Amino acid sequence: MKGVILSITPHATLIDLTHEIEPQNVLQAAFLLEASYPYFPEGSVFVNVVDPGVGSKRRILALKTSRGIFLAPDNGLLARILDRERHLELRSVTNSEFFLKKVSRTFHGRDCFAPTAARLAKNPGKFREVGPLVRDYVRLDFPPPKVRGGKIAGEIIFMDHFGNAFTNLSREFLRNEGVTSRFRVRVGKKEVGPIRGSYHEVEKGQALALFNASDILEIAVNQGSAREKLGLRQGITVEIRKS
Amino acid sequence: MKGVILSITPHATLIDLTHEIEPQNVLQAAFLLEASYPYFPEGSVFVNVVDPGVGSKRRILALKTSRGIFLAPDNGLLARILDRERHLELRSVTNSEFFLKKVSRTFHGRDCFAPTAARLAKNPGKFREVGPLVRDYVRLDFPPPKVRGGKIAGEIIFMDHFGNAFTNLSREFLRNEGVTSRFRVRVGKKEVGPIRGSYHEVEKGQALALFNASDILEIAVNQGSAREKLGLRQGITVEIRKS
Amino acid sequence: MKGVILSITPHATLIDLTHEIEPQNVLQAAFLLEASYPYFPEGSVFVNVVDPGVGSKRRILALKTSRGIFLAPDNGLLARILDRERHLELRSVTNSEFFLKKVSRTFHGRDCFAPTAARLAKNPGKFREVGPLVRDYVRLDFPPPKVRGGKIAGEIIFMDHFGNAFTNLSREFLRNEGVTSRFRVRVGKKEVGPIRGSYHEVEKGQALALFNASDILEIAVNQGSAREKLGLRQGITVEIRKS
Repeated sequence: MKGVILSITPHATLIDLTHEIEPQNVLQAAFLLEASYPYFPEGSVFVNVVDPGVGSKRRILALKTSRGIFLAPDNGLLARILDRERHLELRSVTNSEFFLKKVSRTFHGRDCFAPTAARLAKNPGKFREVGPLVRDYVRLDFPPPKVRGGKIAGEIIFMDHFGNAFTNLSREFLRNEGVTSRFRVRVGKKEVGPIRGSYHEVEKGQALALFNASDILEIAVNQGSAREKLGLRQGITVEIRKS
Repeated sequence: MKGVILSITPHATLIDLTHEIEPQNVLQAAFLLEASYPYFPEGSVFVNVVDPGVGSKRRILALKTSRGIFLAPDNGLLARILDRERHLELRSVTNSEFFLKKVSRTFHGRDCFAPTAARLAKNPGKFREVGPLVRDYVRLDFPPPKVRGGKIAGEIIFMDHFGNAFTNLSREFLRNEGVTSRFRVRVGKKEVGPIRGSYHEVEKGQALALFNASDILEIAVNQGSAREKLGLRQGITVEIRKS
Repeated sequence: MKGVILSITPHATLIDLTHEIEPQNVLQAAFLLEASYPYFPEGSVFVNVVDPGVGSKRRILALKTSRGIFLAPDNGLLARILDRERHLELRSVTNSEFFLKKVSRTFHGRDCFAPTAARLAKNPGKFREVGPLVRDYVRLDFPPPKVRGGKIAGEIIFMDHFGNAFTNLSREFLRNEGVTSRFRVRVGKKEVGPIRGSYHEVEKGQALALFNASDILEIAVNQGSAREKLGLRQGITVEIRKS
């Protein structure tokens, strides 16, 4: 993919956003992209190839916002950004002049995404030529938290290589639900106390919950791995209730 | 290695081709290089340090083709490109003026390969100065497929991080052997059907065989890991025969 | 972090030094930085975020040497360089004008280190503005070798992805202790012979000790993994004595 990009746009600055998405984990990719893109220069082109549908009839989407251009399969990967951003122009990439001459059925990253990104980085004015405007797109298959009788039940949606767990509970959502410092967090059957402000509010090796740098409730262990200590895996319930 | 390159050629554009080669797996490196180099800009310098022989008397090869310059230990890593490309100039890198002043016996990547690459990227005209022309080189130790009684037996040579398996069977070889859509593929004792065109011709979670984006027969699972589902490992037989 | 840097200094050249430090392993980071920095161009800015203390009161250090600028938490990560380099200017980074406007309590890499690095890369003359000069700093918690009765006992401090083990025994230290080629090395209960010059002085698959490309005693296996073959782990004793 990088060879293709540099062949078309030799002076592009290439950044690896991450190579640690689990295979086919669109949800994880969507959250990591959402956490990262506001920190990039305006006009950046984000190429997102978590693409379990490659070779099927899934569309390729191109999204223009005031921040830059985003390319991704139509599988929910851009849904978080579509929810957050304004002044959107969303198109289906169908113009094969943007692709390599020969397009394989298993590696659209190289044959479609990379050359389209390179051409748009070189000439953003061509955005309207990639294909027709679209209004519909695949939503993110994303378990919503449940609120019942003063309890809020979310879940773990992925873990990073430190063993920190990312939940489906945002700071904004919990604030709207009236969660305060008097509430306590339970992960599976394990009580981990109130929502903390930093890892160091608990002893080394102890589990805690805190809002991470993306304002998402995270389950962690101070200087350790929550995945290992708490035996976490995707889907485990994270419950918040008044103490 | 990158520090060395930028110290010599400050404006070099550096691309990590891969860091996922298994330790000492020259065969895997040779195939991944073969799959990648045609997509890079002409004049690229490819530095390939899968080098189990570092510190022995193995030579360092420098190859010039119409595509660019390739540096690698003389261990078979360049053999696939030497087979494919024309207008080749192959030299043994012996001129220590291309190296760092102090050369260790365990990290020629840093001390020999990186500075030679940087000097050649800066001044490709110096290629002839790296050392003498050579004609002989180490071939790739690469199991050939066997053809017997209408059956073709290949094998798995490595797997990627998705769990897709790469075989020693190319599209061109199988076409020359008369393989058509009526043939069926067996991996170990497991039948996986005819050669497909895309992952989505089977159900999610089902195994299949298809030509990958490098025109090599690949064993895969739609949205899953063939390594896990089929218990694959290097050397397992992949058999193709008429149904 | 890279997005932040490029937002401030669009033409910065970004190099990933490594992403293979074990979580919270400051010792490993300190050694890898020490092994790498001499090979980078003068004036480089090294951003080192192995930061188990993020969110506590640990300081952020900025160090200027004749080689360049180093940023790291005050946790020992820079201690090896502070020991080796001359003409040092060491400051505590306290000037929030160098940071992002909003600073999280869990990701100072993004919010403090990256923007400070970008501003210093753009304008190294601003170094004195980052904060006050400091003289004290956290030393590296680093097990010293023991010398007793003609035997030297060191230990394994980390392993790389080849399974090679890095010890706390440097070439210089062993020379000063009078170690010669007549001495022999024992790893745990396993004798691995004298200190060799290269992997190829033993048969393929055999264990050995040698000085690596950073002049540190390394335990390795020729074309194999010492971690696997010898069952190594951090803290295992490496003993050197006259044969």
